[in-house]
Amino acid sequence: MNLETISETLSHGGVQGVYRHASAATNTDMTFSVFVPPQPERGEPLPVLWYLSGLTCTHANVTEKGEFRAACAEHGIIFVAPDTSPRGTDVPDDPEGLWDFGQGAGFYLDATEEPWSRHFNMATYLLDELPALVAEHFPIDPARQGITGHSMGGHGALTLALKNPGRFQSVSAFAPIVAPGQVPWGRKALDHYLGEKGPAWRAHDSVALIEDGARVDELLVDIGEADPFLEKELRPDLLEAACSAAGIPLTLRRQSGYDHSYYFISTFMADHVRWHAERV
Amino acid sequence: MNLETISETLSHGGVQGVYRHASAATNTDMTFSVFVPPQPERGEPLPVLWYLSGLTCTHANVTEKGEFRAACAEHGIIFVAPDTSPRGTDVPDDPEGLWDFGQGAGFYLDATEEPWSRHFNMATYLLDELPALVAEHFPIDPARQGITGHSMGGHGALTLALKNPGRFQSVSAFAPIVAPGQVPWGRKALDHYLGEKGPAWRAHDSVALIEDGARVDELLVDIGEADPFLEKELRPDLLEAACSAAGIPLTLRRQSGYDHSYYFISTFMADHVRWHAERV
Repeated sequence: MNLETISETLSHGGVQGVYRHASAATNTDMTFSVFVPPQPERGEPLPVLWYLSGLTCTHANVTEKGEFRAACAEHGIIFVAPDTSPRGTDVPDDPEGLWDFGQGAGFYLDATEEPWSRHFNMATYLLDELPALVAEHFPIDPARQGITGHSMGGHGALTLALKNPGRFQSVSAFAPIVAPGQVPWGRKALDHYLGEKGPAWRAHDSVALIEDGARVDELLVDIGEADPFLEKELRPDLLEAACSAAGIPLTLRRQSGYDHSYYFISTFMADHVRWHAERV
Repeated sequence: MNLETISETLSHGGVQGVYRHASAATNTDMTFSVFVPPQPERGEPLPVLWYLSGLTCTHANVTEKGEFRAACAEHGIIFVAPDTSPRGTDVPDDPEGLWDFGQGAGFYLDATEEPWSRHFNMATYLLDELPALVAEHFPIDPARQGITGHSMGGHGALTLALKNPGRFQSVSAFAPIVAPGQVPWGRKALDHYLGEKGPAWRAHDSVALIEDGARVDELLVDIGEADPFLEKELRPDLLEAACSAAGIPLTLRRQSGYDHSYYFISTFMADHVRWHAERV
């Protein structure tokens, strides 16, 4: 598959790249970033950490503000940051022009409803197309993969890991949406992308997936206690209850004073990278 | 002096703030950022590192992309990032609308020529007004100050340190302009702000200042060998020759493969913070 290099820049001893390709899954061009740390031997396979971003973000937010490169260089792990949705003038967007749905808000699922299903196929994109492309162009070891994400991207990391046992050796999240079927951002997205509330919603809801039997070995979640979305959108208490009932070891760290921003994410990023590096 | 808080966000255990105030030096409002690391005792005086940014930047570039907070938290050093010039619709700008002069390009001097002299007084702002304001509102130890900067801001750090012996206990730079009187960016700025080439130019040119007897104890400079401005604008060879002739210990690290961006700066930021922390 063709890959267009937008930029490749040396940083922390590795190469921070930004790339674009024509996606068959989304029927759009897609842009993503990859950091390849310094390699003992050129081409030596390395583990990979997928980072899924939150509402309104592109690959650029974490690439510029995530402070992951020093840790990835130290631990020898490739960091891939996809976009959050298909984009373009042909791609439908929020009917009211709001920022919490549509472009920038793909919710990491395959839409089944019109007009969304033609482009909004982020699950297929992230599970099939992009990994194949990344494996073709970068020295990843497909047997060693971790996944993490922020907010909507935390939802993406948790659901993709829960729905694909064995695919990811480690999963963590920063301030994730854990029960989209029960919160405003999630209900809006699931209603548009998947139609009326029903079994399809439960298949894209971490808490429901766990209740219905999906499992991961363990979870690391950081969340800021000053996050303005904590009570209404994120609901870590629901994840805590579901993991407790299911016997999933959850390390949930409620970080006093931290908000929802990259000032929070960057503070704990190195720790998440280390955590994944120890497990993949 | 009044200080308006634009934002204060917890990060890496400290507080990243952005502030605005009415400046008497520039006759404009000025915005800057301050990171106060976690303090053993609240209000305990801490050393401060001033970071001066490059052409087109505001306080925001390094604040978002500089990766300084982890190191400042580790070493207990306050990090202040001022803007690069006065700004506003009343402030004159580049006559041709270019990005290398005028707003975003104050060159850290006091202009003497019209129409620049009413607002472009960044030296007075940085040496008198802003330090007084910072000392009033943040727990800095004025006897322990370091200064660094990037590109035009490296020029600012070097010239302000050379012109004010004893004021800064440590000085370093990332890819600095070292001889503005001899390079296009610098000649354009000095010509507009200070008038025709003459003694005033030498007083704002690091290489000329050293040739004319100004001294600092030692210098740390990182520069990328893939920096596109290396030969035409930065000329580290001129600084190397001047320091050698003057007996100033210069650690000049030519970093293979690095460019002029924050991907370069952030790679070596932690090392500069440590270097300053050991000296202030």
